[in-house]
Amino acid sequence: MRHYVVIVAGGSGQRMKSSVPKQFLLLNNELILMKSINSFYTFDKSIKIVVALPEGQFSTWKDLCLKHNFNIKHTIVAGGQTRYHSVKNALAKVNTEGVVAIHDGVRPLVSQNTIKQVFKKASISGNAVPYIDHVDSIRYVDSDVNHPVDRNKYKLIQTPQAFDCNIIKKAYKQAWNESFTDDASLVEKLGIKINLVSGNRENIKITSKLDLKIAESLSNYLFE
Amino acid sequence: MRHYVVIVAGGSGQRMKSSVPKQFLLLNNELILMKSINSFYTFDKSIKIVVALPEGQFSTWKDLCLKHNFNIKHTIVAGGQTRYHSVKNALAKVNTEGVVAIHDGVRPLVSQNTIKQVFKKASISGNAVPYIDHVDSIRYVDSDVNHPVDRNKYKLIQTPQAFDCNIIKKAYKQAWNESFTDDASLVEKLGIKINLVSGNRENIKITSKLDLKIAESLSNYLFE
Repeated sequence: MRHYVVIVAGGSGQRMKSSVPKQFLLLNNELILMKSINSFYTFDKSIKIVVALPEGQFSTWKDLCLKHNFNIKHTIVAGGQTRYHSVKNALAKVNTEGVVAIHDGVRPLVSQNTIKQVFKKASISGNAVPYIDHVDSIRYVDSDVNHPVDRNKYKLIQTPQAFDCNIIKKAYKQAWNESFTDDASLVEKLGIKINLVSGNRENIKITSKLDLKIAESLSNYLFE
Repeated sequence: MRHYVVIVAGGSGQRMKSSVPKQFLLLNNELILMKSINSFYTFDKSIKIVVALPEGQFSTWKDLCLKHNFNIKHTIVAGGQTRYHSVKNALAKVNTEGVVAIHDGVRPLVSQNTIKQVFKKASISGNAVPYIDHVDSIRYVDSDVNHPVDRNKYKLIQTPQAFDCNIIKKAYKQAWNESFTDDASLVEKLGIKINLVSGNRENIKITSKLDLKIAESLSNYLFE
C-alpha cells in the first residue's frame, strides 16, 4: 500500500508573538517542522511527503534545510487562505491509490505507534483518526446554560488523520464551509463513518510558547 | 467574607506506579501538596485550610512537614472511600458562613488569579468553577456512533471550585451517587446554576509521571 503524508505548516506565527513562524522554532535543537517530517520518514522511508507552506516562507525553508543538512525528500506546495485550502493544494500531488495521512506540522511529537495505527486502520477501513481522553471533567456551555457531560464520551482529536486517497480527494471536492473543523468532518459529510484509534498524549499541537515548553519536557521524557 | 479551602489529597499513588503517594512527590524541590496549600495561604493568610488525607498517611505527612519546615497552619481530616466522602469529612470542619474552595491536592499550579476569581464570583453569586478551552477538536463517541461537536461549547473543568458554605454543606447532605463527577455537579442537583470563571492552563492535575514532567516545565515557565 502506497503511503503519502500531507503536512500542513501554514501558521504565520502570530499566536506565538514571535517573528519566526512556529513550525520553524527549535524543539531540542531540531526544527519543529523537520521533526514532524522525520517522524513519517522514520515510519516509511518510501513515503511520499507533501508539505504545504505559505509561499512567503519558501526561501526561508530552503535555507533552513541547507543549514540543518535536512535532506529528506519532500514536495512543497503553497499554503492557502485556510487549512482547507492548504490541504486541497497538497492533495493535488497525491495519487488516487494508496493511503494519505494529513498532519499538523506543529505536532512533532506524534509517536511511531500512532502513525502505524492510523495507516493500518485506514488501509483496512478507509479512514482513521487518533483520539485521547482527558482527565478533567467536561461541561457543555452555551450562553446562559451549562451542565456536566460524561467525559468518557468526549474525546480530544489529534492528527495524523489517515484516509484512502480516493475518498479524501472526493471529500475535498466539496466547497469550503466553516463547519469543516478537521479532515474527518469533511469525509463525514460524504456519509462515511469515521474510525477512531488511540493516539499518544505527547502529540500536542504547539500553538503558544507555553506549548513549546510543554513539548520540550515531553520530548525529554520520551527519551529518558 | 471568611475564606475556607478544602484540599483533597486522597490519592494512593497507584496510577504513578510509585510507592510515594503523588501528593508527596516533589515538584521543583517542593512537595506537591505543600505547594497547593501554599497557593491558598498566599492568597489569604487568614484562610482556614482543611486537608483530607488517607489516615495511613497522617504520620508520614507530619514527618514531612517537620523535615521541610512546613508550618502553614492546617487541619487534617481522614480521607474517605471516594472523593465525595473525603470532602464530606472535611466540610464538617467548615462553618456555615463564608465561602469555601474545594481543591485537588495534586493541582499545585493554580494561579493566584484563578483563586481570586473563584472566591470573588462565589461570594457574589454563590458558586464558581474554573474552566479552560482546548485547542484540539472534540468528538462525541458512544459505542458505534461518533461525530464532531463544537469545541467552543465544551470546556474542561478544573478546581478550585468555590461555594457559599451553606450551599455546599446542603449539597453534601445528598447521598453518594456515581453521577457526582465533581462538587459543582452536586450543587447542581439542588437546582442551582453553576457559574464559570476563566481558569489557568498550567493548573493541571498531576496523575502520572508524564503529568509531573509537564508540571515541572510549566512551573519553570511561570517563573521565567
